[in-house]
Amino acid sequence: MSVKPVVLRLGKVAYANEAWKNLAKIANVVTMPENTTREQFLKALKDPQSEVSKTQIITRTFASVQQTGRFDEEIAKSLPSSVVAVCHLGAGYDQIDTKFFSERKIQVTNVPELVNNSTADTHVYLLLGALRNFEYGNRALLAGKWPSAGAAAGAPVGNDPEGKVVGVLGLGGIGRTVVERLKPFGFAKFIYHNRRRLSPELENGCEYVSFDELLALSDIISVNIPLNGNTRHILNHDAFEKMKDGVVIVNTARGAVIDESALIDALKSGKVRSAGLDVFEDEPHVPQELLDMPQVLGLPHMGTNSFETIKHMEEFIVENVEAIIKSGKGLTIVPELQGEPWIEQAKPLV
Amino acid sequence: MSVKPVVLRLGKVAYANEAWKNLAKIANVVTMPENTTREQFLKALKDPQSEVSKTQIITRTFASVQQTGRFDEEIAKSLPSSVVAVCHLGAGYDQIDTKFFSERKIQVTNVPELVNNSTADTHVYLLLGALRNFEYGNRALLAGKWPSAGAAAGAPVGNDPEGKVVGVLGLGGIGRTVVERLKPFGFAKFIYHNRRRLSPELENGCEYVSFDELLALSDIISVNIPLNGNTRHILNHDAFEKMKDGVVIVNTARGAVIDESALIDALKSGKVRSAGLDVFEDEPHVPQELLDMPQVLGLPHMGTNSFETIKHMEEFIVENVEAIIKSGKGLTIVPELQGEPWIEQAKPLV
Repeated sequence: MSVKPVVLRLGKVAYANEAWKNLAKIANVVTMPENTTREQFLKALKDPQSEVSKTQIITRTFASVQQTGRFDEEIAKSLPSSVVAVCHLGAGYDQIDTKFFSERKIQVTNVPELVNNSTADTHVYLLLGALRNFEYGNRALLAGKWPSAGAAAGAPVGNDPEGKVVGVLGLGGIGRTVVERLKPFGFAKFIYHNRRRLSPELENGCEYVSFDELLALSDIISVNIPLNGNTRHILNHDAFEKMKDGVVIVNTARGAVIDESALIDALKSGKVRSAGLDVFEDEPHVPQELLDMPQVLGLPHMGTNSFETIKHMEEFIVENVEAIIKSGKGLTIVPELQGEPWIEQAKPLV
Repeated sequence: MSVKPVVLRLGKVAYANEAWKNLAKIANVVTMPENTTREQFLKALKDPQSEVSKTQIITRTFASVQQTGRFDEEIAKSLPSSVVAVCHLGAGYDQIDTKFFSERKIQVTNVPELVNNSTADTHVYLLLGALRNFEYGNRALLAGKWPSAGAAAGAPVGNDPEGKVVGVLGLGGIGRTVVERLKPFGFAKFIYHNRRRLSPELENGCEYVSFDELLALSDIISVNIPLNGNTRHILNHDAFEKMKDGVVIVNTARGAVIDESALIDALKSGKVRSAGLDVFEDEPHVPQELLDMPQVLGLPHMGTNSFETIKHMEEFIVENVEAIIKSGKGLTIVPELQGEPWIEQAKPLV
């Protein structure tokens, strides 16, 4: 029997096989079949015959939710007492109800920072496309309408950044990276709203406004907030009512920060002129009504879908696991658990 | 009978009606019906009963080529001797064979600079989209494939700017504006090729290389050269052979600077991994084979299709006409006619 700490790996590794091979020198890496169900997962956690029941660290990908379901109260309570950490591959960890893991003194790590660039690139793409009605033109081109429809295949003219106010909802790592990229495009101004105003260095020229001011003043609303109990449906029917007519909405954060049916209504009425969406409320299911609108430029959650970013993230999760094994504490504890004494005093696993 | 100079306006005015109304105070503005054919246009130019035969300045839009055909030798020779200028609404004026107009001492103006921002915005959109395989994901999303195809609806992972070399073919006003916008994205390096090396101020950090070096070193080739006899099919089969495997091609200049059938072959073989194309060789006709490729992100020539840019361009053409009326010389003579003594010595029309 191995004396190495047991690391349970949920979800596929695409590019960090070398890093995992090295990790296997100091850890016993256990995986579960790809077609595992939540029921089978819960059963294995309690089955003393299974290596899974000896797990000390769990790593999980965004897509592994298809096998295990959300990391909720039930899973938190079903984990064997050996588990000390859940390491999530991604910046957004709304699939994990951290409170229940914290109660069991299980630390949760995410992968911030590394996702900023590729998510911001996706955001800029969607913002430019929505502002300029490029999806409309693209669909008309593919449908063979150009010869008969005339200039731009009949796509309505879009707008330039000139004179436009960008309102950043959530000026964190991704929001700031979006702003850095948008600076040379000639927008009139950047405003932002966070729950608390940032220090001037972190504001980097963006003007702090209240939530209602952000809604009222923005020509483009750039959504970059994490999903949690406070932010779910923060852009609801009331919020859309407070926006400028013809506003452009861009969301690469999480679908459920927007009330999707309120967005559809606002798109239909023209209140929202166009939207660039990488995320949806009930992924991978998207209302056909939303897909049918040429003023919606949509992507199937591709914000971090790049070779370099996935590789960096996968390698970083291995670094998190190594840190926990060697020092007891992960490198990137999620914000609400940072400073917890039981994490600060955690002991190495070897 | 009016003593005001006659200005023949070819093509629609969308947003500069106020400017044209003001121009009408000093000029006799003549238009032709929208369904005019080239034959009717040529006839009107020679019909002494028609105001058109007294034209002194012609303004034309890109789309007016549908009525008149190219401004070629035949049209140049058919113009009445009263014509002193052709003012084109756009930066690229490949629809005009300037040589034949120059021979008749007819000046040609275009609209440079004002198109730079909106064209560069389009370029950045296409570049990001092609680099990240966003068109692939968009099509899969719209086709309802996300639920069954899994992460990113099955779109292949794309790449980040990290470590990539951008090769700018044609570092002019638009090329420089593209580079300015791309700087914060974290590319490894910008290289460029022009026929002649630019001064360091205009290079703005881009490294000068030969044409063959640009082909061999670039991960992304950003095409920003005007179409003329020297540049037609400059990216042909031989050029694609010299490129890196998996290169990304972005073109917002003119379709015919690329040999479209050679591009299709290079896309099929994987030599070109993906392409972002706003322009095509035989617009508005695009080969179905090209449209069918999910690795091609295409737009129906929308580079300047924005309200602000069209308005600025339309207003600027009126400024050009006013300048010719009042001083004899247009504000933005096309490069190959700049400094011609017969333009420098031209007399006011009033």
